[in-house]
Amino acid sequence: MSYTELSALGEFGLIDHLTRDIRLKNASTRKGVGDDAAVLDYEGKRVLVSTDMLIEGVHFDLAYTPLKHLGYKAVAVNASDIYAMNGTPRQITLSLALSNHASIEGMEEFYAGVYLACERYGIDLVGGDTTSSRTGMCISVTVLGEAEEEEVVYRNTAAPNQLICVSGDLGAAYMGLQLLEREKVVFQGNDRTQPDFAGYEYILERQLKPEARRDIVELLREKGVRPTAMIDISDGLASEVMHICKDSKVGCNLYEERIPIDYQTFKMAEELNMNATVCALSGGEDYELLFTAPLDRHDLLSALPGISVIGHTCREEEGCRMTTRDGNTFELKAQGWTNFTKKEEGPSHE
Amino acid sequence: MSYTELSALGEFGLIDHLTRDIRLKNASTRKGVGDDAAVLDYEGKRVLVSTDMLIEGVHFDLAYTPLKHLGYKAVAVNASDIYAMNGTPRQITLSLALSNHASIEGMEEFYAGVYLACERYGIDLVGGDTTSSRTGMCISVTVLGEAEEEEVVYRNTAAPNQLICVSGDLGAAYMGLQLLEREKVVFQGNDRTQPDFAGYEYILERQLKPEARRDIVELLREKGVRPTAMIDISDGLASEVMHICKDSKVGCNLYEERIPIDYQTFKMAEELNMNATVCALSGGEDYELLFTAPLDRHDLLSALPGISVIGHTCREEEGCRMTTRDGNTFELKAQGWTNFTKKEEGPSHE
Repeated sequence: MSYTELSALGEFGLIDHLTRDIRLKNASTRKGVGDDAAVLDYEGKRVLVSTDMLIEGVHFDLAYTPLKHLGYKAVAVNASDIYAMNGTPRQITLSLALSNHASIEGMEEFYAGVYLACERYGIDLVGGDTTSSRTGMCISVTVLGEAEEEEVVYRNTAAPNQLICVSGDLGAAYMGLQLLEREKVVFQGNDRTQPDFAGYEYILERQLKPEARRDIVELLREKGVRPTAMIDISDGLASEVMHICKDSKVGCNLYEERIPIDYQTFKMAEELNMNATVCALSGGEDYELLFTAPLDRHDLLSALPGISVIGHTCREEEGCRMTTRDGNTFELKAQGWTNFTKKEEGPSHE
Repeated sequence: MSYTELSALGEFGLIDHLTRDIRLKNASTRKGVGDDAAVLDYEGKRVLVSTDMLIEGVHFDLAYTPLKHLGYKAVAVNASDIYAMNGTPRQITLSLALSNHASIEGMEEFYAGVYLACERYGIDLVGGDTTSSRTGMCISVTVLGEAEEEEVVYRNTAAPNQLICVSGDLGAAYMGLQLLEREKVVFQGNDRTQPDFAGYEYILERQLKPEARRDIVELLREKGVRPTAMIDISDGLASEVMHICKDSKVGCNLYEERIPIDYQTFKMAEELNMNATVCALSGGEDYELLFTAPLDRHDLLSALPGISVIGHTCREEEGCRMTTRDGNTFELKAQGWTNFTKKEEGPSHE
């Protein structure tokens, strides 16, 4: 495979090259890439806007992250924020800063992932900015979505004595990251060794190519369940449940045994001598949906595939707690993955 | 002045700290910072979206760029894109990657500039992302604005035999940059020397604190002039006029003597042995508005303060040309400041 330096095309040439095949999917996109701004028409619906930045060396490591996966992930994690508002993502803008190491072929791979995710979630790429970086790659995506006014679900609208539910399973993306980091070290130590990922495909995919839970939002709508509050899990369950509790002025009680954790996550945690529950609470990057719902929906929600009822809200004074498998109760702490802590803290080894 | 490391607050603490005093200005902003997404209501108007990324070491040098100015500029250059669509900016999202050198006090300065520009242009900050960077600072702003459908002015709607007009004056921001770079070198060579900026305040301000031309958009509206095509000048006059011509399938003839250039720009260019017209054509970062208008508006537009008629459009086959002061004609080339050229090219010394 040959590599072509970006300078062969220049900034405008690169953007033209990478956006020439865009076909707009949404009626709300009146004008996409190619002017000072995109022009959208939301026809009376609410416009939802969210943004996320991914930095090389902080959020991803190009030593083991395929560029196509990275492009996919950059879109999916933004779409996730719109689903967490109970909305539908419609457009993204994508800004990229690229180092001298970047090639046109690499950018084509990245954009192939971007377009694949756009296809998957029905999103139009409508604008962006591409520039050089003196150092690593920097990705900034802003997503716009829509919802009817009465559909929007916020974080601050949970009430005491409601169900706390989560989609999918937790902790897998963090375990996938640990595996990738371990194999990277092994590989760097001995370049004849091939990384050994057999039996861990699921946790790798959760790390490298997460999905936004469009299906869950659609399922809940189909079943007539409107969450009373909702958030997506990007920084770990503990941090996100505490966001809902703080903003809604409620407390919570989670049950450890109800927290959904995949077999591969358990297995990897065991191998690394870590506690799988701690990974689920603090690992981050799950992009599952955490929501609250009225108590009388318990039987309906418990029976839905891909949804777990993991606890309930209570009065604020009772605090945020978790009941462990052995019946003890402890206070939740939002350890989750704060970027500015002095030492990089992962889940502690209990 | 004391400096506090960012780790003292953590990511959520920092965002809370920097956004706690936001008061929303626009009716269209229903929910700002604090959920998975902001919620906006454009009530039937068109939504305009644009995004720009600023990278340390590429777009700005913290050796001579005050953080407050940088925050102001990050908002102003985005607002400029919305005015270039004949719209009104309403909201921004702001994502920041910060190196370990960043302090809370520095970020307060940066946000003070952001809020000052938001105040100036009537914009609400409604979301963002703050993360660490392994290297330099990276700023990504997405701006949303509004316009009635029939108000939006595109790049591709100019016709032959129309006036080409520009606001303000050109080349000053580039000359300001040259002056800052020169004084940085002098200063680095001898740390007793104070930089000498006397008599060059205007070109410095054009570089460090550009304004978006809200006033021009309002003036044209007041006078009943609707541009037939419009773009803002971020990469130099030559590049932008060729964007309009290419997208509208027209040619153009500009007159060198009509290109508005400030006295300080001429003086600085002379000192540096550069050609001021070349700086205006290719310097970039002017953030003036370039627009076309019907021929019969010539007398009205010529009489308006802050607007210069600099040429006219013609048939596409005639190409994009400029007639110089001595009566020669040459073909325009979009040299303007392409980020991926191998050597960094400024305007050539003619």
